Amino acid sequence: MTTVLELYQDQVKNQSEVTILGWVRSNRSSGKLGFLVMNDGTVFNNVQIVYKAEQLANFLAISSLRISSAIKVVGKFCVTPSAKQPFEIQASVIEILDDASEDYPLQKKEHSYEYLREIAHLRAKTNTFNAVFRIRSSSSFAIHEFFNKNNFIYVHTPIITGNDAEGAGESFIVTTRTDNNYNEDFFEKKASLTVSGQLHAEGFAQAFRNVYTFGPTFRAENSNTTRHAAEFWMIEPEIAFIDLEENMTLIEKMIKHIIIYLFINNHYELDFLNSNVDDKLLERLKSVLNDEFVHLSYTKAIEILQKAVTKGQKFENPDIFWGMDLQTEHERYLCEIETKKPTFLFNYPKEIKAFYMKINDDNKTVSACDLLVPGIGELVGGSVRENDYDKIVSRCNELKIPTTDLQWYIDLRKYGYYKSAGFGLGFERFIMYVTGMKNIRDVIPFPRTPRNLLF
Amino acid sequence: MTTVLELYQDQVKNQSEVTILGWVRSNRSSGKLGFLVMNDGTVFNNVQIVYKAEQLANFLAISSLRISSAIKVVGKFCVTPSAKQPFEIQASVIEILDDASEDYPLQKKEHSYEYLREIAHLRAKTNTFNAVFRIRSSSSFAIHEFFNKNNFIYVHTPIITGNDAEGAGESFIVTTRTDNNYNEDFFEKKASLTVSGQLHAEGFAQAFRNVYTFGPTFRAENSNTTRHAAEFWMIEPEIAFIDLEENMTLIEKMIKHIIIYLFINNHYELDFLNSNVDDKLLERLKSVLNDEFVHLSYTKAIEILQKAVTKGQKFENPDIFWGMDLQTEHERYLCEIETKKPTFLFNYPKEIKAFYMKINDDNKTVSACDLLVPGIGELVGGSVRENDYDKIVSRCNELKIPTTDLQWYIDLRKYGYYKSAGFGLGFERFIMYVTGMKNIRDVIPFPRTPRNLLF
Repeated sequence: MTTVLELYQDQVKNQSEVTILGWVRSNRSSGKLGFLVMNDGTVFNNVQIVYKAEQLANFLAISSLRISSAIKVVGKFCVTPSAKQPFEIQASVIEILDDASEDYPLQKKEHSYEYLREIAHLRAKTNTFNAVFRIRSSSSFAIHEFFNKNNFIYVHTPIITGNDAEGAGESFIVTTRTDNNYNEDFFEKKASLTVSGQLHAEGFAQAFRNVYTFGPTFRAENSNTTRHAAEFWMIEPEIAFIDLEENMTLIEKMIKHIIIYLFINNHYELDFLNSNVDDKLLERLKSVLNDEFVHLSYTKAIEILQKAVTKGQKFENPDIFWGMDLQTEHERYLCEIETKKPTFLFNYPKEIKAFYMKINDDNKTVSACDLLVPGIGELVGGSVRENDYDKIVSRCNELKIPTTDLQWYIDLRKYGYYKSAGFGLGFERFIMYVTGMKNIRDVIPFPRTPRNLLF
Repeated sequence: MTTVLELYQDQVKNQSEVTILGWVRSNRSSGKLGFLVMNDGTVFNNVQIVYKAEQLANFLAISSLRISSAIKVVGKFCVTPSAKQPFEIQASVIEILDDASEDYPLQKKEHSYEYLREIAHLRAKTNTFNAVFRIRSSSSFAIHEFFNKNNFIYVHTPIITGNDAEGAGESFIVTTRTDNNYNEDFFEKKASLTVSGQLHAEGFAQAFRNVYTFGPTFRAENSNTTRHAAEFWMIEPEIAFIDLEENMTLIEKMIKHIIIYLFINNHYELDFLNSNVDDKLLERLKSVLNDEFVHLSYTKAIEILQKAVTKGQKFENPDIFWGMDLQTEHERYLCEIETKKPTFLFNYPKEIKAFYMKINDDNKTVSACDLLVPGIGELVGGSVRENDYDKIVSRCNELKIPTTDLQWYIDLRKYGYYKSAGFGLGFERFIMYVTGMKNIRDVIPFPRTPRNLLF
């Protein structure tokens, strides 16, 4: 048995006989000659099968073979240097293993992404989604490989949690009861789905120095945008003994590592997406590899935005002031117009950032960074964590965050917590960035959004 | 800055000066000489620091330095061929970065696993849990590496699901409401936490041929045993075009790959666990590598068990008959006494297996396999899936499984679903197997069990 991957990897001699299993992608024939395109799942690319009436006893059956049918092909592997495709197979036998029903919804015409979401169990059989989910898989592996090579310990932080610190009001409840009585519930307390693994990762960083989580996180936010899903995956590294500068260096190294991995392992997919989905994709990814990321303080960014407004730049929100939470339009202006490169903003006002971030000596800003990238806006958010027990307690009090369920987390500061920093990468947002897909629903195998729980 | 890992990897020259950051594991001193054991998180092993009153201005402060304090050590790296440890550091400077509080709960004495579960945020700082969670991390990576090398696509199957096929009555409900009104809930229908990613993986296998999931799964089963947790991780590969024999070959290859990876990358941890937790561990893992796994039909296994009973073997459940669901005691007898090797049982009675398994030509058994291993019992369960649309519908009807939410899954059979097989590996059970730990709570960073949702 040969795979189409092996054909593309030049592992098969020209003119030798091969046997291939796969699915029909298209099929056309005249009275005596037919062309069948098949994909066997082992590589993004298809292979063309040429079949002739004079050779196939079942020529008529094969001529009317429907898309998505499973077949076995025996034939001669022929390199075709002058043709569009690099090779073809001249079939001597085509066996029908499983004939697809005629109501197969992915016939040759183009389908809208909206329609394809309704058949998420089948859409990976289209070129676009095949490419997207291959890149999703490769990116996952590249991330694990990067952290493994850099001696990080992978921690499975819990999905069900009793902490509600970050997700106030936007957490899903996990229960086995249909009433409200959590004291008699499975865990004898209110349980929710995690919004972040960071707090637990911090604990493990105090033992292993370099750790990361990579798992699902959840938001019960009722927003139907192209950027929000109720269930999405996050990568959250946490590193003891490092500061913000080293944190930013690590983020840049990680992003570049994944993109290099994709250029090496997924060039067919990237080429396809560049031709069919986003014609700036390759240019954008190449420039990320070649550029050093820009470092820009929040304060400097505000000045730049204010100057832009006075020079006539139109923002939907033109009221720029120190202390504001930047919107996507501002973030995109900064990295698309001003720096034209992936850009770290750092030292944000403490009021717009989370309770666990380390307050700088100015007592106004926190040691935090966001990575902004052209075409997307914010891709990564990170910070140095507050390591002082008293300061984090008083910050919780200021923000009226109840500390009962967080006491273990705060207690970490008592036992040699010198320094720790980390960041969060929203995996789906990253996949949108490296595929050019514009809707988060189209980079998740089976997306979960408000009022949508098919499959 | 040097890491302790680099010292153990012979990357540092004898007698050279090094600077190391880490945490104190133990500390003792006489009036003029002190020995401090530190761990910097980069490797399982510790390093001993020798410090002298004549060299350290802060000798007294260092002498009373508490366990878990964060320190910076500058000193001379000295290879010590005649000592117990391979090298030590003769300190010229020890700086206290963060002094641990005196109530640090992990003082030098031994602690019970039960107690350590109550401080799960700190227990990774003990040797045992440090070893366990390093092995958990390595095993995760080895799994991703294995499937990546074998050209599998990693699919993130959904955590929140509307299907309830396998988890009937044992699923957690996911909601944003405190009443029972799922029609007005976030998803406008009842949602639960997944018990398996297999159904979704099957869909993707029809596009990519080789796929796997590796993610959290959930059971709201109210059982307080050493083998059950409410939240655990599963590896579920799914492969189109293969049969049961190839499925078993893949399982064996995967198990052996992970164990080889651990022998190469975690020998310190394995040695420690063998000396301190389970003195049969290394012997068991080596024999897994050296043995070919045994293949034994369920029918033959029943005969063996019946013969054993007549020969005087005592089981808690001695009533052995064809059609019974084997208990752990039976499984362990088969692989520990009878074959003394990892053993596949295959072709189980259809009545005791799931609705989606392919019924064999005898119409009595299904094409399923379980892998039994000495010391544990069942480690992996797999099967060939029913590919015939009519047969799977009638099986659902027989078992009174409602098909509304499963229609997409059943429909896969209409579009070229020739063959598919796969298996599930419970990740925690595997980690227990390769660490010798006897309680599932001790191989999960922050375990979730009935009435237990700390952290």
